[in-house]
Amino acid sequence: MQVAILLFEDFETLDVFGPVEIFGRLTAHYQVTFYSQTGGLVKNQHGVRIDTMPLEKIRGGVDIFLVPGGYGTRKEVNNFLLIDTIKQISALSRWVFTVCTGSALLAKTGLLDSRMATSNKKAFDWVVTTGDKVNWVRKARWTVDGKFYTSSGVSAGMDMTLGFLKDIHGLEFARNVAFEIEYDWQEEKDHDHFCGQ
Amino acid sequence: MQVAILLFEDFETLDVFGPVEIFGRLTAHYQVTFYSQTGGLVKNQHGVRIDTMPLEKIRGGVDIFLVPGGYGTRKEVNNFLLIDTIKQISALSRWVFTVCTGSALLAKTGLLDSRMATSNKKAFDWVVTTGDKVNWVRKARWTVDGKFYTSSGVSAGMDMTLGFLKDIHGLEFARNVAFEIEYDWQEEKDHDHFCGQ
Repeated sequence: MQVAILLFEDFETLDVFGPVEIFGRLTAHYQVTFYSQTGGLVKNQHGVRIDTMPLEKIRGGVDIFLVPGGYGTRKEVNNFLLIDTIKQISALSRWVFTVCTGSALLAKTGLLDSRMATSNKKAFDWVVTTGDKVNWVRKARWTVDGKFYTSSGVSAGMDMTLGFLKDIHGLEFARNVAFEIEYDWQEEKDHDHFCGQ
Repeated sequence: MQVAILLFEDFETLDVFGPVEIFGRLTAHYQVTFYSQTGGLVKNQHGVRIDTMPLEKIRGGVDIFLVPGGYGTRKEVNNFLLIDTIKQISALSRWVFTVCTGSALLAKTGLLDSRMATSNKKAFDWVVTTGDKVNWVRKARWTVDGKFYTSSGVSAGMDMTLGFLKDIHGLEFARNVAFEIEYDWQEEKDHDHFCGQ
């Protein structure tokens, strides 16, 4: 399956590379490619500069489309051209993932209306303003509603990706991947002790 | 403090970007830069292509020099020019980090002789062959011996980096960073349930 990662200026590092570590190592099942609005090098505040293809190439949708969070989302929620492209690709993709404040970008498209979604706990009050018809779930490590997987902050993207592997390949498969990367997988999507509620 | 990340073909994604997430967000304290033997784009099997500077620029050492693991280490342990450069930079740097099989590259320099070090559990039997004078510790999430921090597999690099923050800035500081990225930090470096011993 084709996994397309959206990048934009000031994306959050681990939102992206946690899931990429997990999908990337499963070369028999998944192939990861990075995209941005115009293609080329995309940088963030952590000193990362990564090469991308233009989003234009996946206008017809992909198997999995992942939208990360980060400070850049504060700017990109007002980038109507990007939001429109996210909407088109998401509508035509088999699954859509968001990590952290990436759910704000997807909420802006309207595709999360009447659906469950979550986000980073520290940015939650801002994120909910990006979609007033979304069923925002404050206390969740991640949520699944139809083809939409949305995770809580940063590290939660790894737990959600392993949760997706469980849904597709079974629990033992997912546990084996977590073990290979020596990761303590938080297996329960509703368990969230970062929520404070 | 300057954090220099070594990249080479087929580095492990999370070995690099776990620590980068943690150092990168602490912009008041740390600045992350990526290096490779000749500079330019470095790619891995997970579809990642990262822009780097040539290692030549940090021959005089840095504050923190991080050597990741990954399949690429199997080839690079025989790259004598790279090992020699790692040796020179490590000798002149204030701290040296390895994640996963990155400890094989550092062991090859001889700088870990008579020092404690650990590595990925699945590759452990290979890694120990790269330095027969190293005090290899099989059961450890990470080890600290003088200026050398070495971690177990992949995700353990995040726990070690948070452990470093504890050593430098105190426990509460490190816990706050873990909380911000909603990460369940494994705080005890000697606790390792991936070891099987």
